[in-house]
Amino acid sequence: MSNEDSVRAGVRAALDRARAENRTVLNAGEAKALCDAYGIPTPAEAVVKTADEAAARAAGIGYPVVMKILSPDILHKTDASCVIANVENQAAAAQAFDAVTAAAKAHNAGARIDGVLVQRQLEAGQEVIVGAATDPTFGKLVAFGLGGVLVEVLRDVTFRLAPTTRADALAMLDEIAGAAILDGVRGQPGISKDALADLIAKVGRLVDDFPEIAELDLNPVLATAEGATAVDVRVLLNFTPAAARPRPSQERILAAMTRIMQPNAVAVIGASAGEGKIGNSVMRNLIDGGFEGAIHPIHPKADEILGRKCYASVTDVPGDVDVAVFCIPAALVAGALAQCGAKGVPGAVLIPSGFAEIGEHELQAEVVRVARENDVRLMGPNIYGFYYTHKNLCATFCTPYTERGEVALSSQSGGVGMAIVGFSRSAKMGVSAIVGLGNKADIDEDDLLTFFEQDPNTSVIAMHVEDLKDGRAFADVAQRVAKKKPVVVLKAGRTSMGARAANSHTGALAGDDRVYDAVLRQCGVIRARSLNDMLEFARGLQALPTPKGENVLILTGAGGSGVLLSDACADNDLTLMPMPDDLDAAFREYIPPFGAAGNPVDITGGEPPATYRATIDLALGEDRVHALVIGYWHTIITPPMVFAELLGEAVAAARQAGNDKPVVASLVGDVEIERACDYLMERNILAYPYTAEKPVAVLGAKYRWARAAGFV
Amino acid sequence: MSNEDSVRAGVRAALDRARAENRTVLNAGEAKALCDAYGIPTPAEAVVKTADEAAARAAGIGYPVVMKILSPDILHKTDASCVIANVENQAAAAQAFDAVTAAAKAHNAGARIDGVLVQRQLEAGQEVIVGAATDPTFGKLVAFGLGGVLVEVLRDVTFRLAPTTRADALAMLDEIAGAAILDGVRGQPGISKDALADLIAKVGRLVDDFPEIAELDLNPVLATAEGATAVDVRVLLNFTPAAARPRPSQERILAAMTRIMQPNAVAVIGASAGEGKIGNSVMRNLIDGGFEGAIHPIHPKADEILGRKCYASVTDVPGDVDVAVFCIPAALVAGALAQCGAKGVPGAVLIPSGFAEIGEHELQAEVVRVARENDVRLMGPNIYGFYYTHKNLCATFCTPYTERGEVALSSQSGGVGMAIVGFSRSAKMGVSAIVGLGNKADIDEDDLLTFFEQDPNTSVIAMHVEDLKDGRAFADVAQRVAKKKPVVVLKAGRTSMGARAANSHTGALAGDDRVYDAVLRQCGVIRARSLNDMLEFARGLQALPTPKGENVLILTGAGGSGVLLSDACADNDLTLMPMPDDLDAAFREYIPPFGAAGNPVDITGGEPPATYRATIDLALGEDRVHALVIGYWHTIITPPMVFAELLGEAVAAARQAGNDKPVVASLVGDVEIERACDYLMERNILAYPYTAEKPVAVLGAKYRWARAAGFV
Repeated sequence: MSNEDSVRAGVRAALDRARAENRTVLNAGEAKALCDAYGIPTPAEAVVKTADEAAARAAGIGYPVVMKILSPDILHKTDASCVIANVENQAAAAQAFDAVTAAAKAHNAGARIDGVLVQRQLEAGQEVIVGAATDPTFGKLVAFGLGGVLVEVLRDVTFRLAPTTRADALAMLDEIAGAAILDGVRGQPGISKDALADLIAKVGRLVDDFPEIAELDLNPVLATAEGATAVDVRVLLNFTPAAARPRPSQERILAAMTRIMQPNAVAVIGASAGEGKIGNSVMRNLIDGGFEGAIHPIHPKADEILGRKCYASVTDVPGDVDVAVFCIPAALVAGALAQCGAKGVPGAVLIPSGFAEIGEHELQAEVVRVARENDVRLMGPNIYGFYYTHKNLCATFCTPYTERGEVALSSQSGGVGMAIVGFSRSAKMGVSAIVGLGNKADIDEDDLLTFFEQDPNTSVIAMHVEDLKDGRAFADVAQRVAKKKPVVVLKAGRTSMGARAANSHTGALAGDDRVYDAVLRQCGVIRARSLNDMLEFARGLQALPTPKGENVLILTGAGGSGVLLSDACADNDLTLMPMPDDLDAAFREYIPPFGAAGNPVDITGGEPPATYRATIDLALGEDRVHALVIGYWHTIITPPMVFAELLGEAVAAARQAGNDKPVVASLVGDVEIERACDYLMERNILAYPYTAEKPVAVLGAKYRWARAAGFV
Repeated sequence: MSNEDSVRAGVRAALDRARAENRTVLNAGEAKALCDAYGIPTPAEAVVKTADEAAARAAGIGYPVVMKILSPDILHKTDASCVIANVENQAAAAQAFDAVTAAAKAHNAGARIDGVLVQRQLEAGQEVIVGAATDPTFGKLVAFGLGGVLVEVLRDVTFRLAPTTRADALAMLDEIAGAAILDGVRGQPGISKDALADLIAKVGRLVDDFPEIAELDLNPVLATAEGATAVDVRVLLNFTPAAARPRPSQERILAAMTRIMQPNAVAVIGASAGEGKIGNSVMRNLIDGGFEGAIHPIHPKADEILGRKCYASVTDVPGDVDVAVFCIPAALVAGALAQCGAKGVPGAVLIPSGFAEIGEHELQAEVVRVARENDVRLMGPNIYGFYYTHKNLCATFCTPYTERGEVALSSQSGGVGMAIVGFSRSAKMGVSAIVGLGNKADIDEDDLLTFFEQDPNTSVIAMHVEDLKDGRAFADVAQRVAKKKPVVVLKAGRTSMGARAANSHTGALAGDDRVYDAVLRQCGVIRARSLNDMLEFARGLQALPTPKGENVLILTGAGGSGVLLSDACADNDLTLMPMPDDLDAAFREYIPPFGAAGNPVDITGGEPPATYRATIDLALGEDRVHALVIGYWHTIITPPMVFAELLGEAVAAARQAGNDKPVVASLVGDVEIERACDYLMERNILAYPYTAEKPVAVLGAKYRWARAAGFV
């Protein structure tokens, strides 16, 4: 038995004992044993049963000691006066034993007393809390925050999926609001971040190795310049975890999703000739959208529908069928699914409603069971269908949309799906796909990510998510995909913060939204805060090249815009490039003496097109500038379309010369600026009227992605 | 001499002594005397010079005591080990004297030692910090935050203008992030908020009474259930405060501003017949805009310009002139101003640039001096001019804009001014006025507020502000005006946080932006976070009636919109009305059995217009519902224009019946929803496509105002 095996065996034995005794809380000794097994430092200690024993053992441990009651019935020991610190000698130890025992009885006369813990009292250090919890969506998480009452109130805590790499653990230390405290303030020495990160990583490994550890609190952990020691340990167990969701291999997912999303043959189950029927709208959209593959209407009686030969069952269709679009009542779905299985159709698009969303959970479960048995993947139910523009595919009853682009969008809600279609059309945003996920009985965001990851027609993925059916699977895939393509998520229901039963601090701190926030960040996913942000990011990210560094330069014709753009850069964690002297001098060549070089470069409002062009060319050609934010001010001297054309030319020339860097623009002025923005947008230069914030927010999203993916 | 006078005389004497001794820091005894004079509790204490004296005085004060070195050369006493706490008896007191004296010498061999402070050591309490600082914009401020190293890092602190009412001081206690700590957490008793608010108010009075107190730190203040005691007091003085800005009375401001904003006769100094000249554009805009008053071009030689009789000097014009628009080079401005003074023109609109904005501070100061001597108010210089639509007045060289509405806007930057014009035209937003303030050599936002306060054509005021020349004057007026009309401020330059020399904690915590934030909140001003927010608030607030209570109801045809709208409500501090059983039952009459009543009311997506109408009527007619947020989902059954018309009718009918409550709508769907939004906007129902956040943000702004003004 290897060392690691023997470590695990020891922990397993402790957990099995608790299980046998029907306990869901480990006692202090067992909890310490877990820490010992995983190399999580704890103070020297002993459990004693009498005052004499306390006095005897304290000497061996070394003074000062702290003494605490051990009782499964007293959770908050300090609040119950069952902790005495600064015990300095033998007599005091004996006294303290009596005092905490008495206090425990006073607090709860019926409390079971397992003894008194005599523990080495550590030197002062920074109190922090490290813990683990089991999230219903994401599974095992580790948590880190500063300790003490204050932080419990301020909830300055962060999370990661367990297990956690040391690098991630180190990042956790930096991302809490009070991070500066760990570096030492007001003459205090900083703590050892290595030791603390090490401890966090060990906690992550422990709960990952033993799923029955539901919650774990190391509170406080005393962090010093030398190390990190868990002073108090609580471990809560759950021996009946939720069943894992069945999950095909990535290869199988990809094979099925590819046939579904890029089919050569589509069957429409419940196709109809009757106008206004869903089965008719789907047929029309397939045909009118220009889908070039086979379209097979399925109808029990009809010979043909909209000029296409009709079959009574999908099993009657000659040749392969890649996807079946269901336009039949909920009650008939299971039967038709079995036929799809018999035919070897890998995917079914379940438009019908009448399932879990109206409380028909059993009917939905039955459909899922039939699908699994027949190896058919399900999209939906309760959806509008989906679009895949590069196949001219509109497998939906909604309005057709065929403008091609590189962004794939999904939505869990039909309303949001329609907003995507409308916004795309209005903003002339090309898409690669729009997918409705609805009830997500089967296909979840992670399946879509697996497909879009390798889809050459997709460079950006944007998802409206209400809940992830399997957050862990999502995180696994998103983490991988986000390294290659920006993934944007609008998590709706942020504020629901479902009341969750939690018996530990860590559990109580792990509200839905802060967990989503931390996990999405860990995955390198860009979180959109609003529907409009998601749509703007979807439109903008595909147009922006990846920046090669952090240096952002603002170039503006309006000082006022420069100030607002600077504010927006700060809000979006963008770095205004400190202006090198030589570059400053180069800009000053072009701008009036009272204009401001530095960053923002303020060319002033009265300048002709030549000044805009010269300074823009300078910025685009300068390797030290990694992204350009332009503030244009409508004047008679440089009218909007003149500006738009010169900027378009400048960027095209720079791209030709290999200088392709992100350029975004804020245009302020009279309504003519709207046409100038449209002109620029058509040339992949993000330009927005009447706002300084939007262009910078999209650039900020691109940077967030590029940093997480390791490009800057 | 009254008691109050004698109190002040005592403080004055201490300050005068410091001044005479050329000191800018009060010693501990003087600082304590200030506290005593204003009833700010401090612990019993004595200053001693020898170890024996320490032992003797400690007994009188009562043990335990804490002992601290007194030295003007040691600022952070704890860091220098010059503080010893828990001194329990005579021998310990003598020892402690020697120890802190030695530590002081070790820390700084040359430090001047004024003695050792022996101070009663207080029982544990919550450490907080109360202070005061002098802000360059707003003058005296009081500050409050939680004490300790942690909060110094987290900067959880809030501010108010001094003097501070007790009500404001109480509000400060509730608005810090860690407010819950003051109520007591984990078994700790809450602190006396009355005592703490009382102490804050006293600090506010002290610094208001004595402007030479530049900064003041009570750090820590120990707050307990019984009281609040300032344990350590630091007072920094500044005997050379900035000169106060001259400020006419409100009556004089109003008289001048009324003639300027609503003139009967306008002179154009530097009017020109030459196209492309500013003096020509201004003439054209005045004439083409339809101004019905007299327009007098002033030109040294011309007889007439654009058909209007020309005068060589404004003094030659027959009859009164209310405002003169300057279109002449900077160098000529002072001379022409003197003529305006001679003529009795109350206001000059200084379009010319070439002043402080390009470093010509002296020229600007000269112009201000001439204006003051001649009793002429100045708008600008370096501005586009201004618009006042209800007089058809376009006193600007920019494009004319004459759409009448009830919102007055101002901007400090020309770029933002043009964005206002463009957005207004594009969004069909009527305005009452658009004003450029530019360099603000004289007329500042407070002058505009004084005018718009009583302007019957203005119901909402929105201002883009880069800096306030006199923040105190602004706050005085804004506080009054915001009780009557919503005032929106976009403070640009939020993130500049100018490096300010500060020698106290309070001073260091008072960064520009957190001070603006606190003061604007104190004034009841709605802060816009972005240019687009300012513009949307300007458009929306004039359309929304004032809500009569906090109960917001969401009514939606798309479950997904309901979730996003709920998120947005939470983000905007709106209260989703808990649904009463009877009202729930009433809604259920109309919605499908699987639809969700409660709040949001989800009528589900497949419903016909009648369901929308019935449920909207129910909500509008229900007194317990104070504001309605509607989420519309584009379907074939209820198309966008059908929805828009039914909502328009329902709201019109409700208004007719006296049920005028705020209604905002989020429309999701294909591009047809844009026309539906336009239709609704024209009917003062705020409706936005492709966003759930924007309608709720505007409603949130209305609520923020209504709460601060006391309407809800």
